[in-house]
Amino acid sequence: MKQFALLLAMSGSLFLAQAQEIKEDFVPSSKNQPQQEYPQVNSQGYARFRIVAPAADSVRVSLGLGGQGGTKLEKNAEGVWMGTTAGPMDEGFHYYHINIDGGTFNDPGAKNYYGSVRWESGIEIPAHDQDFYALKDVPHGHVSQVLFPSPSTETSRRAFVYTPPGYYANPSKRYPVLYLQHGWGEDETAWSNQGHANLIMDNLIADKKIEPFIIVMTYGMTNEIKFGSGFRNFSFEPFETVLVKELIPYVDSHFRTIADQPHRAMAGLSMGGMETKNITLANPEVFSHYGLLSGGTYSVEDVTANKDKIKLIFLSCGSKERPDGVKNAAIALKEAGFNAVSYVSEGTAHEFQTWRRSLLEMAPLLFKK
Amino acid sequence: MKQFALLLAMSGSLFLAQAQEIKEDFVPSSKNQPQQEYPQVNSQGYARFRIVAPAADSVRVSLGLGGQGGTKLEKNAEGVWMGTTAGPMDEGFHYYHINIDGGTFNDPGAKNYYGSVRWESGIEIPAHDQDFYALKDVPHGHVSQVLFPSPSTETSRRAFVYTPPGYYANPSKRYPVLYLQHGWGEDETAWSNQGHANLIMDNLIADKKIEPFIIVMTYGMTNEIKFGSGFRNFSFEPFETVLVKELIPYVDSHFRTIADQPHRAMAGLSMGGMETKNITLANPEVFSHYGLLSGGTYSVEDVTANKDKIKLIFLSCGSKERPDGVKNAAIALKEAGFNAVSYVSEGTAHEFQTWRRSLLEMAPLLFKK
Repeated sequence: MKQFALLLAMSGSLFLAQAQEIKEDFVPSSKNQPQQEYPQVNSQGYARFRIVAPAADSVRVSLGLGGQGGTKLEKNAEGVWMGTTAGPMDEGFHYYHINIDGGTFNDPGAKNYYGSVRWESGIEIPAHDQDFYALKDVPHGHVSQVLFPSPSTETSRRAFVYTPPGYYANPSKRYPVLYLQHGWGEDETAWSNQGHANLIMDNLIADKKIEPFIIVMTYGMTNEIKFGSGFRNFSFEPFETVLVKELIPYVDSHFRTIADQPHRAMAGLSMGGMETKNITLANPEVFSHYGLLSGGTYSVEDVTANKDKIKLIFLSCGSKERPDGVKNAAIALKEAGFNAVSYVSEGTAHEFQTWRRSLLEMAPLLFKK
Repeated sequence: MKQFALLLAMSGSLFLAQAQEIKEDFVPSSKNQPQQEYPQVNSQGYARFRIVAPAADSVRVSLGLGGQGGTKLEKNAEGVWMGTTAGPMDEGFHYYHINIDGGTFNDPGAKNYYGSVRWESGIEIPAHDQDFYALKDVPHGHVSQVLFPSPSTETSRRAFVYTPPGYYANPSKRYPVLYLQHGWGEDETAWSNQGHANLIMDNLIADKKIEPFIIVMTYGMTNEIKFGSGFRNFSFEPFETVLVKELIPYVDSHFRTIADQPHRAMAGLSMGGMETKNITLANPEVFSHYGLLSGGTYSVEDVTANKDKIKLIFLSCGSKERPDGVKNAAIALKEAGFNAVSYVSEGTAHEFQTWRRSLLEMAPLLFKK
């Protein structure tokens, strides 16, 4: 728990200390609502905001000065609030919100993404490697919303299932499955909406870098904890029941899966990594490939008892997190004879660019013959 | 165009004129974000809002006094803005937003729904007949996001495809298809998110009231028009090309459809009805069942030339719209020998409760042997 709390605390956006001339090549963020010109981003990673609230006394954006109050907007002669971050942001996706006269609201220009137990505004700082999650003219898989029966929680629960291109054209082919979890305060929409997991897969498959597999994403905070109450009251067991006893049987009976342990992986980001660790260790007959993305590590002691059942341990984080932790854990696991791989996303923190890249690195390692 | 503009103008929320004691049985709206207590609704249809913005001078909600400035909130002793609509709202779903010190924002308590060319806040006034779109313990179909190639617009476009329960279990069965369009300012998410089309179908199928069919929903404002510029620059042809030349072939090659005119329907709400009328009349070899939901009517002259190809004409609207228009049109069509049906949703206006009920009424009439 302690390690995870520390990772969360480090997840703010950092930027260069030196002064820099701001290039006036701002364009609308790719995460904007249709027809919205603001927020904007420039080629250096600065973000510029524009909020209309002529009678407001104070408008702030939560981004741009991690921990120091964000970016304060100034009212211009037309009564419109404008402001630019004090420095470049990290590449990739960031959640944010606006504070107007003491209240928390979303930016009307941006689309919303579920994080921090609320639908937050999102902005995208163009990344040098954004091509790997771009929408391209390649065959696209489908992302299906399913509602599966969950007797343990007495409702139908939602999951999203990515089926790769070719799923329809090859009606007798069966596929391995990756169960992929979001982080704290996010939900089952995160890996598609913020993570572009479907586009990452479509592009990897088009480039013949992986054998196609299915991805299943569902909500991992089964026993919801109240915002601000921390993890004290959080328990993995209710989610373990939903995942192992309810969702997996549903997926295996409604999609053409290879329904055995060697062809089933589990991975998760941040809190989803903690869940992955707990659930994989408790269910060695269910999963064979494990991935923790900014979500801790396995020690050799954790996994020794099930050594012959584990085909891959993938550990990753951003270079602005604690890369030595995942590197050293992977080294120790390799020395103990495990197929362990570590990956560090250069120049990123506890944010989605780290996890997009982690999926890109992990996917080709899964379900190797 | 004129008729449609008039329908839009009538689409505000109306409520009872007489004074009424407000029952203090308010509960959170079913469209709230997780863990959010406000907005609330009571058993009479009143809505109550709570906005935190202690330093704001003015907070208004766009709902509650259609056309007269909405509901003005008052700041209480704790610095929190509260207010209740001056009367009961119509049953069902309503879009709304908040005006804070002259700016337009969403209610942080509510989930967002795409309408009016922006992601708006949504609230649900419990309806006496809400059971037909409730999430129940019945088999659920899937709603799949597909990205289909669109050479005419030089991109991959998004559609959602509802496949009924049993689709996987019966791998040789083929299904008829309804192409179902949203209204102006909405998008391909509307029929699932606001309309609960998937739940309406799941419940109808569980009750054995219909033979299962597929529903396809895509974005109909292919040549996007700028907000506020009206319909002057809107043309149906680009969407017709996407739908008929690109989406239908994709669906027929990626889902188990019965790919012929007798098993293909098109319907739409509001502007989607106008599109349906234009596209069905221009493509009599493509669609056999037509539905206009608060979206105009067909005259006998419109359809006489293709009388033998048309299996159903369904016309509907809310009782607070212009019900005589759809009733009289259906009577004239019936007299001319068409299978025409009109439906009027009692007590609703140009809003989603009208269209949920219209789908409920129309679905059992489609694809009858």
